[in-house]
Amino acid sequence: MVVTILDALIRACNSAYNQTKGIIGTIEAGKEFGIGAGGDITKNLDLVAEKAVIESIRNDKLSPTIIGEESGRIEGDKGFLIIDPVDGTANALRQIPFYCCSLAYAEDFKLSAVTDAVVMDFFSGDTYYASRGKGAFLNKNRISVRRTQDDESLLIGLNISGIPVQTLETLSNLISQSNHIRQFGANALEVSYIARGLLDAYIDFRGKIRATDMAGAYLILKEAGGKIYDMHGSELDSDLGVSTKMSFLATATDRIFERISNPITNRKR
Amino acid sequence: MVVTILDALIRACNSAYNQTKGIIGTIEAGKEFGIGAGGDITKNLDLVAEKAVIESIRNDKLSPTIIGEESGRIEGDKGFLIIDPVDGTANALRQIPFYCCSLAYAEDFKLSAVTDAVVMDFFSGDTYYASRGKGAFLNKNRISVRRTQDDESLLIGLNISGIPVQTLETLSNLISQSNHIRQFGANALEVSYIARGLLDAYIDFRGKIRATDMAGAYLILKEAGGKIYDMHGSELDSDLGVSTKMSFLATATDRIFERISNPITNRKR
Repeated sequence: MVVTILDALIRACNSAYNQTKGIIGTIEAGKEFGIGAGGDITKNLDLVAEKAVIESIRNDKLSPTIIGEESGRIEGDKGFLIIDPVDGTANALRQIPFYCCSLAYAEDFKLSAVTDAVVMDFFSGDTYYASRGKGAFLNKNRISVRRTQDDESLLIGLNISGIPVQTLETLSNLISQSNHIRQFGANALEVSYIARGLLDAYIDFRGKIRATDMAGAYLILKEAGGKIYDMHGSELDSDLGVSTKMSFLATATDRIFERISNPITNRKR
Repeated sequence: MVVTILDALIRACNSAYNQTKGIIGTIEAGKEFGIGAGGDITKNLDLVAEKAVIESIRNDKLSPTIIGEESGRIEGDKGFLIIDPVDGTANALRQIPFYCCSLAYAEDFKLSAVTDAVVMDFFSGDTYYASRGKGAFLNKNRISVRRTQDDESLLIGLNISGIPVQTLETLSNLISQSNHIRQFGANALEVSYIARGLLDAYIDFRGKIRATDMAGAYLILKEAGGKIYDMHGSELDSDLGVSTKMSFLATATDRIFERISNPITNRKR
């Protein structure tokens, strides 16, 4: 039986899900193991999940170069596997029901070369996935972004945790004009929410996001018809290195990009 | 059989849950019915839930004066029933899994006179409840706030949707110093999350919250050992009128209040 790369990614997420669900919310899950390759404190939960992912991928006879949130870069033969084993670890440790696993496979060392992606909601088990050119899916059902009407108020996800005061200022007009700001605490799942039509936009301008954090959701959103921009309004791209950090703005449609970028751009006028 | 007030509130939440779960996420749920007593646009979902609550309470032979987010004030014989039939309506309409029903019973027309309270998570069915002096519970298990260590980073819930730019500025140092900001979009459930130890604090300084929005969570948090302050750092109290609006800061402990109020207070120094 030939395993497609997408199948292998889904199996790897399932393996991590099964091996972590027993320890979510336990003291064991929160044990600390120094600083991971991505620069955050590695918790036992992250390690267990990343190990499960890597083992599953190798069992499926794939040997990509691994770019892991915890492990860093491990050289392989062909392609790149970008792993955020648990996005939303702080939520998981508190048993707040919003955290996920994010996996992406890229044929070259950049975001735009991602061909396959899975984001699995580790609380509900909901599985978002996409292969380039083939659309985005949630649990085998095709998903697409919401085409919100101009007179509807938007649901806008933000990540402002630890944001510099001056960067927050650039968002303050948008925030003050928005009826529905959200911050659930796991960016890969929040961007997948745009792909599913639950959120209209997501903004992280802190300059802290790495490809490991969002390579999976990046492809899922694009395949669902959404857009991802950098801070200058250009299409987002980046290399996949764990030390490369970026800011981004994801939206369901170009029209929503216009609606939310105006209050940002016009702040100083 | 004698039905306690707390039993009646739980039964009323259950009734609203059963009568709304079939329409969550449907177009039917989002039909608009003008402006409710609380000043927001009333959706069909809110109306169905509020009707179910009121019918259930009357079936249990109680006739309090009703203070409803949608219906406004309906005179009764004894005590006050404060109803937010669906807190997080915008989430419910999009099928974002975070919305609840909030009910409180007060023997007098003020927050501090609330004696019984229920907040039911309408996605999971989790039921938070409390009676004055008898502790707080989640699904029959006693709950209490988390006593976070001083060297642990805090999980802080905010409501900054539509916040005036100047008010956001008063929070900007706190936000820039916090690793984990959250905004799930249903304040009664977020304050209940503090009671359960999932969040450490919740701040809504917009001056828009009414007693209907938080009377239930107010008692649940207090009975779980938490604290609720007004903007001046005094213990929060207020009348229960739907047109009375307030700001508040809820924390698990006095120590957390100190930790988060310093960056707010010291902003201008």
